[in-house]
Amino acid sequence: MPINRRIVLAERPVGMPKPSDFRLEEAPAAEPGPGECLVRAAYMSVDPYMRGRISGRKSYAASVQIGQTIVGGAVGKVIASNAPSVAVGDYVTGNLGWQEYAIASGAELRRVDPAMAPLSAYLGVLGMPGLTAYHGLLKVAGVSPGETVCVSGAAGAVGSAVGQIARLNGCRAVGIAGGPEKCAWISGELEFDAAIDYKAQDVSNALRVAAPDGVDAYFDNVGGPVTDAVFPHLNVNSRVAICGQISQYNAVDAPVGPRLLWHFIVKRIRAQGFLVFDFTDHHDEALAEMAGWVTQGKLKYRETIAEGIENAPAAFIGMLGGANIGKQVVKLSDA
Amino acid sequence: MPINRRIVLAERPVGMPKPSDFRLEEAPAAEPGPGECLVRAAYMSVDPYMRGRISGRKSYAASVQIGQTIVGGAVGKVIASNAPSVAVGDYVTGNLGWQEYAIASGAELRRVDPAMAPLSAYLGVLGMPGLTAYHGLLKVAGVSPGETVCVSGAAGAVGSAVGQIARLNGCRAVGIAGGPEKCAWISGELEFDAAIDYKAQDVSNALRVAAPDGVDAYFDNVGGPVTDAVFPHLNVNSRVAICGQISQYNAVDAPVGPRLLWHFIVKRIRAQGFLVFDFTDHHDEALAEMAGWVTQGKLKYRETIAEGIENAPAAFIGMLGGANIGKQVVKLSDA
Repeated sequence: MPINRRIVLAERPVGMPKPSDFRLEEAPAAEPGPGECLVRAAYMSVDPYMRGRISGRKSYAASVQIGQTIVGGAVGKVIASNAPSVAVGDYVTGNLGWQEYAIASGAELRRVDPAMAPLSAYLGVLGMPGLTAYHGLLKVAGVSPGETVCVSGAAGAVGSAVGQIARLNGCRAVGIAGGPEKCAWISGELEFDAAIDYKAQDVSNALRVAAPDGVDAYFDNVGGPVTDAVFPHLNVNSRVAICGQISQYNAVDAPVGPRLLWHFIVKRIRAQGFLVFDFTDHHDEALAEMAGWVTQGKLKYRETIAEGIENAPAAFIGMLGGANIGKQVVKLSDA
Repeated sequence: MPINRRIVLAERPVGMPKPSDFRLEEAPAAEPGPGECLVRAAYMSVDPYMRGRISGRKSYAASVQIGQTIVGGAVGKVIASNAPSVAVGDYVTGNLGWQEYAIASGAELRRVDPAMAPLSAYLGVLGMPGLTAYHGLLKVAGVSPGETVCVSGAAGAVGSAVGQIARLNGCRAVGIAGGPEKCAWISGELEFDAAIDYKAQDVSNALRVAAPDGVDAYFDNVGGPVTDAVFPHLNVNSRVAICGQISQYNAVDAPVGPRLLWHFIVKRIRAQGFLVFDFTDHHDEALAEMAGWVTQGKLKYRETIAEGIENAPAAFIGMLGGANIGKQVVKLSDA
């Protein structure tokens, strides 16, 4: 069997993770058992939710234990298969973890088509982040043509899709992101109606200009002071889809901020937290619509690609600090 | 015309209102114009929302200006009428303000039946607070039999109805109130399944006992630390109906507290702020059902009655400090 390199959790991070919280291990890949296959990963995913999984905090999913492989999606090629539904040479995606070779049951894998989109796209716009954007905006927030949608983390994998899907549904899209390069990308190539640089601008003042009629739907990826600044701009009967709170993930003490519930009454706001897994039954129809948009050039994406599994922790730490534009992935092989 | 005594806003309160923020004025009552009637109030209402109306803060309704009569509901008898729909001698309720004699257009008044319930009940369980409880619990939170409902401000006009309506819908009701008398009332006469005294108990620890399977629907009247303590007990797919935030109404500085949005994601919480006016189209059916419960003795209520309009400011200030049990009203005449 080939040698498998994987990243395991060495220490539970306190605050911003450090490289020493992770450890690279090598061992021969396992043999696939009955119904299982061996997948060589081409790209693996680095996502904000992983910060929750490596904390000890109780959440919606079990924590990664010390010594265990970091969880995460990956896309790659099947190199051995005991699963009737999966053939050697198939390209597949699944929760394979941060490793070069993964054993997975055939039922856990989804086949992908490298002729339709590059393999890495199945970790981004045509994968979990794209589905998160689609369901969160259209099913959780719910939007009507003519409404103003505001999205935080707007230059990330999820946020960049949210703004474009909003526009494809006849809405005005206002993105909040950090830094001129991100803002130029979303307001330029992605054609958001407005971009706000929270590092350089007062978000509330900028929103007054960018959304003079207020915000009807807010898709929140970041929480914290950015969200505090958006709340007073929410309109009567507005909706908030709470997807992520990345600004708070490294907090050591319980985060404190302005109380927001009064706004809910004054504006009859509805806020709903969600996980993409809540919409599994609707993934196929969502992916079909998004694949159409991607191939027609209506839904664009960008990737920040780290090379080699040894660089995954640095890519993850960078992402938590906002270093990536678009989807952060790690390239592991040419597949 | 009779002399009308009314309470006007003398100063905008800063923090907890003071008696000197109000002023009693006397003047002859006005003559009703075309389509109007003159109503002699029997009882007038004292409600938490009035704190928002006398602040200068932008909200869902216009502020009372200095020198204007304090807004509020009242119930009384028509003593002169130019409105075809209303006859002298009719008992009516409407937004008549804090005054003994009010002019109102016939269309603004709702006729009430003193044979079915005491007049004061139309300001409470069969009026705005009862409707707030009914719509907020059943339409905003939404409940199913077997669920656990938690309500804050549980011994107030709204909260005491919420817990009983929850039980009438097959739910377990846990009330949070301040002090042993309130807790004894809701867990005794009102038959809540549990009562938590937030002044004497750690709310989170007490909820662990009172709601061992967590909270499925939280009806929030108070906000602040009580609500902070409830959030970690919310179940997956739970709902929060945000009705009031009385603990924050006298805040001078922008209130700060633990950030709550992360809970929304972990538990897929849906929170919705609401106003009773959003459900006007459903008031008649709601009042019919509640009147049935009241006459059958299934929906009980209690009143704290101040006597005389000159005592309205003190009753209001007392209510903001939690002095009342059940509905706070002011008796103005025998009608």
